[in-house]
Amino acid sequence: MEVSDRELTVSKGRFEGLSDGIFAVAMTLLVLEVRLPSGVGANSPVSAQIHALLSIWPQYLVYAATFANIGVMWFNHHALLDRAHRITHGVVAANLFLLGVICFLPFTTYILAELDLSRPAAVLYGLTNVAIGLGYAFVQRAVFRAHGKRSEPITSWNLVGLSGYPIATVVAFFFPMVSIIIITLVALFYALPRGVESSRLPLDD
Amino acid sequence: MEVSDRELTVSKGRFEGLSDGIFAVAMTLLVLEVRLPSGVGANSPVSAQIHALLSIWPQYLVYAATFANIGVMWFNHHALLDRAHRITHGVVAANLFLLGVICFLPFTTYILAELDLSRPAAVLYGLTNVAIGLGYAFVQRAVFRAHGKRSEPITSWNLVGLSGYPIATVVAFFFPMVSIIIITLVALFYALPRGVESSRLPLDD
Amino acid sequence: MEVSDRELTVSKGRFEGLSDGIFAVAMTLLVLEVRLPSGVGANSPVSAQIHALLSIWPQYLVYAATFANIGVMWFNHHALLDRAHRITHGVVAANLFLLGVICFLPFTTYILAELDLSRPAAVLYGLTNVAIGLGYAFVQRAVFRAHGKRSEPITSWNLVGLSGYPIATVVAFFFPMVSIIIITLVALFYALPRGVESSRLPLDD
Amino acid sequence: MEVSDRELTVSKGRFEGLSDGIFAVAMTLLVLEVRLPSGVGANSPVSAQIHALLSIWPQYLVYAATFANIGVMWFNHHALLDRAHRITHGVVAANLFLLGVICFLPFTTYILAELDLSRPAAVLYGLTNVAIGLGYAFVQRAVFRAHGKRSEPITSWNLVGLSGYPIATVVAFFFPMVSIIIITLVALFYALPRGVESSRLPLDD
Repeated sequence: MEVSDRELTVSKGRFEGLSDGIFAVAMTLLVLEVRLPSGVGANSPVSAQIHALLSIWPQYLVYAATFANIGVMWFNHHALLDRAHRITHGVVAANLFLLGVICFLPFTTYILAELDLSRPAAVLYGLTNVAIGLGYAFVQRAVFRAHGKRSEPITSWNLVGLSGYPIATVVAFFFPMVSIIIITLVALFYALPRGVESSRLPLDD
Repeated sequence: MEVSDRELTVSKGRFEGLSDGIFAVAMTLLVLEVRLPSGVGANSPVSAQIHALLSIWPQYLVYAATFANIGVMWFNHHALLDRAHRITHGVVAANLFLLGVICFLPFTTYILAELDLSRPAAVLYGLTNVAIGLGYAFVQRAVFRAHGKRSEPITSWNLVGLSGYPIATVVAFFFPMVSIIIITLVALFYALPRGVESSRLPLDD
Repeated sequence: MEVSDRELTVSKGRFEGLSDGIFAVAMTLLVLEVRLPSGVGANSPVSAQIHALLSIWPQYLVYAATFANIGVMWFNHHALLDRAHRITHGVVAANLFLLGVICFLPFTTYILAELDLSRPAAVLYGLTNVAIGLGYAFVQRAVFRAHGKRSEPITSWNLVGLSGYPIATVVAFFFPMVSIIIITLVALFYALPRGVESSRLPLDD
Repeated sequence: MEVSDRELTVSKGRFEGLSDGIFAVAMTLLVLEVRLPSGVGANSPVSAQIHALLSIWPQYLVYAATFANIGVMWFNHHALLDRAHRITHGVVAANLFLLGVICFLPFTTYILAELDLSRPAAVLYGLTNVAIGLGYAFVQRAVFRAHGKRSEPITSWNLVGLSGYPIATVVAFFFPMVSIIIITLVALFYALPRGVESSRLPLDD
């Protein structure tokens, strides 16, 4: 441990333990918001039950997209912190902001289901993803600072999220479903091996 | 660590931490879907309360079967990854798919309770288990590839799940309860020591 | 690792990871079942709000008792497994049974709240604790077997739970609140340092 | 391990694993209590949907404040236990009390939302934070005792919480929103690097 005695640092084990726990629970809670339309139940005819199960396909799509979104975020979080060896107070603060926004995602999923993918619901989903993009940029910046690299450029890799999410938010005012598809595509971009690899910065030189 | 610098890999610790967290939460959320029939409450006579608690026995069965199902899946996931020493991007992607389907199980439990084990509910449960079987096969395949073994045969061990779950799905169209019993039996097969042992493949030669 | 190649074992790290995750989530989900009586809301007068918050004191008691109950069970689980160095298939199976019953506790808490500590609700709570006592005995037995000690006596330590919980269940048929107090006292007995210490068996000789 | 054979101790790994799990789940469950006012749904006009999403801003504030509150508590919990090397029975008991109160926070969030930040709801939130402050002091005291330091003074660092939370509770009787802001400020005080650093006591001499 090459930490100075002056600065407060956190053990990487517990930092990752809390983060992984929150990622895992947020991913698992999403499905609690997928619900049948009210009025359909055990006494409904089979055809109405089938129709109800099929009619909520946008909820399945949002579930899958958001689950993938958090999974990809976890992957990049891992890639970013893999080479870090100093978890400073600033990294913890930025990370708590990022986790707080990720934990908000089950709420946006609930709103998308409750309001049936309406425009306000899609705008809220877009804004939440903008905040996740910002939160990730904060953590990245804090990790750099913790390793004495004060000025890092915004990479093209960051730009995809920092521009893709605002665009999706604007689009949501007009075409909610298109907005959700854009957010899914951004997540898929970050899921590509190349998308992840470029975030592995040389922190240990 | 004998990883090449070219390929992106993930630390096994965080990979298992996220997986175990998701397994644990999915298992724990199941019980949230076991609910009393509406209309029974504190003001109901004791006999009605007892009747209500007994009348939801299929929910208890589904809870137990699904809990065991996820537990067995965790056990086999462990057995598969125990000897792996390279967690590549492909393994993470396949694993996220598997976890996403497992996290969907509380929803199927909710549907089975809400629709009182109707045929559409049992078909959904069967399809979800088909997807879990596929997801597990994806992870297995990705782990093999990550260790340079590109062609592994479908074993008889895989066949039980890959055939048992589709059969249960077809049966669900006619006899929902029989379908759930088949799925429980497949889980119990994988719970047998022999069932697990055959999945421990020689990855470290 | 002094495991034989013939027998299937599980790494203690992931075994404890899954167990701790389930303990943590079960403890945390309990509070989701503490709810206000219906009919009280933002528009109710302040006096009605205060009355509603106070009137649900039995729910607070059940929350505290069950939380302590699971916490104590975690402590003893830890003490039992601390000296174990072989996690066999049998230990995993017994452990999954124990965890499955512990995960059922949020349901009993919900029933106690929903049925306002009625006799059937208290009997269900008692039976669940009987099952937890049995589950713990199963894990203990499996851990002994895994270390080649096939005959261990039922200790007086086990007897407190194995007799206390059935007694509480019988009492629940007549005095629900007394039953819950007995269960709380059994948990407190196991929380005593002496209660825990006697379970630390010499497994490593 | 310099533990005496006489005294029961717990492995730090599982102790931190359970604690981190509970912190993570408590933080993640908070958002489940953020709900739309009833009567607004998919069929409401867009303007009513937007109004509903904006009208629940106090719920967003309580979510953010409580999330930060638990996050800061986790940070200090980490700083306190970082240098501890003996987790005694007393530390576990105090820690379970602290965790039990933290797990109660989703309930207070639910009450604040359900009763629309009424005075009784804010008093309950204040009292819960008083209990958290006490719980943290208990853990601190138990950690000191476990390392043979029986008399430690109440530091000015402790005083902020031990006085801030009671003050917030009293204020809640008159100005609920001011009370919540005080609690947020206390959390922010503990989030300051200096606030944390002073809790890192020399335990290993």
